[in-house]
Amino acid sequence: MSVQKDKCRIALDAMGGDFAPRSAVLGGIEAHLENADKFEVLLVGKKEEIQKIISENNLNFPDENVIHAEEVIEMSDSPTVAVKSKLKSSINVCIDLQRQKKSDAFVSAGNTGAVMAASTLRLGRIENIGRPTLGTIVPTVKGKSMVFDVGASVDCKPIHLAEFALMGSIYMKEIFQIPNPSIGILSVGEEESKGNEVSLAAHKILSKSRLNFIGNVEGRDVLKGNVDVIVCDGFVGNIILKFAEGFMSFLKAKLKEYAEINIINKLKIGIAKKSLKEILGVFDYQQYGGVPLLGINGITIIGHGSSTPLAIKNMVIRAYETYEKNITERIRKALQEFNLNNQ
Amino acid sequence: MSVQKDKCRIALDAMGGDFAPRSAVLGGIEAHLENADKFEVLLVGKKEEIQKIISENNLNFPDENVIHAEEVIEMSDSPTVAVKSKLKSSINVCIDLQRQKKSDAFVSAGNTGAVMAASTLRLGRIENIGRPTLGTIVPTVKGKSMVFDVGASVDCKPIHLAEFALMGSIYMKEIFQIPNPSIGILSVGEEESKGNEVSLAAHKILSKSRLNFIGNVEGRDVLKGNVDVIVCDGFVGNIILKFAEGFMSFLKAKLKEYAEINIINKLKIGIAKKSLKEILGVFDYQQYGGVPLLGINGITIIGHGSSTPLAIKNMVIRAYETYEKNITERIRKALQEFNLNNQ
Repeated sequence: MSVQKDKCRIALDAMGGDFAPRSAVLGGIEAHLENADKFEVLLVGKKEEIQKIISENNLNFPDENVIHAEEVIEMSDSPTVAVKSKLKSSINVCIDLQRQKKSDAFVSAGNTGAVMAASTLRLGRIENIGRPTLGTIVPTVKGKSMVFDVGASVDCKPIHLAEFALMGSIYMKEIFQIPNPSIGILSVGEEESKGNEVSLAAHKILSKSRLNFIGNVEGRDVLKGNVDVIVCDGFVGNIILKFAEGFMSFLKAKLKEYAEINIINKLKIGIAKKSLKEILGVFDYQQYGGVPLLGINGITIIGHGSSTPLAIKNMVIRAYETYEKNITERIRKALQEFNLNNQ
Repeated sequence: MSVQKDKCRIALDAMGGDFAPRSAVLGGIEAHLENADKFEVLLVGKKEEIQKIISENNLNFPDENVIHAEEVIEMSDSPTVAVKSKLKSSINVCIDLQRQKKSDAFVSAGNTGAVMAASTLRLGRIENIGRPTLGTIVPTVKGKSMVFDVGASVDCKPIHLAEFALMGSIYMKEIFQIPNPSIGILSVGEEESKGNEVSLAAHKILSKSRLNFIGNVEGRDVLKGNVDVIVCDGFVGNIILKFAEGFMSFLKAKLKEYAEINIINKLKIGIAKKSLKEILGVFDYQQYGGVPLLGINGITIIGHGSSTPLAIKNMVIRAYETYEKNITERIRKALQEFNLNNQ
């Protein structure tokens, strides 16, 4: 490979996502071309398919930045099985590149479980981090917050929640320029005494830490924006995230039902729908540029399966920011600096 | 007391709720007067205050059905402390009445934690039920479902989730006339292999049971209506419930923000708001008549703190239905009939 060694290189899984390879190729190349001074993109996947899209769209993209991977981990594949059996898949080749220092970050809109498994198992965890965490950005009344974890670690010990708080805090600070991010534990009441065994013990650890811990927050606080980083185990986080998705579908179905009652309703809903679409556009994942898997020895940015070229482009840029802000190294250092394990 | 012994008697906590005693007295008496053939209501609380509301509203309510309780457990009181220290509170007097067989059911819109604690500690659990459960009704695209648990038991063992499934199934069947309610475990994926330790083990128990268990459901399924009873621990259920509340507030705040941009938006939102209010009216707790605390030796129906007289009236009627359908006894029998503990 003739790629420059001093420039950030981002390995993009060209085969990942519902609209792959088209979305990934178009979005990846746009990111590459617009940020030539900052980073370059490596498109990883079936070379012929990638090149076909490049030529069909008359794009100018260096041939040596297309890295062949002959296998594909499908969205329906079992994550751990696929990661172990499909060694030549685009996901595994992306990880190989990062392991060999031929790339600095990995971006995929493919099988989330497989991306997490490959990243965690093959890049390894940062020393003293018990569990990696996948964070998501949620829109709030005031702006945005992040929730960690939303599915990387379903069964957590108290110390893991404290680690999520530390990692989330660093990410929020560096990526969204929030000086001293406030941290809350998602629980069933604001009082210190409310919670389950894990959240209560995590509360004690965080109270003693030097993080900006504000205590428990409740389900109703998630979209309020009174706290920057909300921590919970991946079981709870994933259920909430998908519940929010379901709430939108519910709203859509009910609006349709209401519109079908009569012509007046139909007109009213026609007007309401447009406004609602604009308002609920804040939930559009495309603008957020994917979500980070933190706690691993490297950079992995995960996108929504239905990522468009725009979403892919923003994910690549987010990967660059994560690299440029040195998030992984900051987490490593912060683990020594903050008082988490001293219980 | 001269109350008839053969008629169902429902003890209503007149001091519970944000609008107590007014809401409780008005709603309770309306339920009493409209259902004289079925049940009678006992108003429990500060006698003078109750009688003042009765006379101010020229209501016809038997004096012997007003039961004096000189203490009040406030919404802000610590539940277990208050239940143990305020023995003469309306909540504890209501429980006393049920213990002494002077009433058949207890209804309160007061401090939920205290109502649950008093009911569980002082009425006791049904034999072989490890944990009581508080269920909530959720509107769905197709109608309604129930979620158990939403806050009675935050830390659960697998067998507890199976018990919730059994109790929820009986409640759904009897109260909402659903012949063989389908049951799902709330988890992070539909596949049997997805979940946390507790949900995975509960999956095994329910698979072997004779309940109509359909497997895992995800957060996005909660409002879909493809399953009648959804089980989860009270930590997860409570967070989702409050998240849904928060989502409504978020929507409201965003609509307001959008309307304030310009006059056109204001007009559009004016139209949209009315329709939305109608559509989201399905989330109105008032019509659901409170939620049941199941698994205890008795009947307790819990209402929203901000219950109106209408909500209170519906809660009292729900309590009567729970009595009339013999839910407690059915749960007791079903525990023997269904194969839950046989692991």
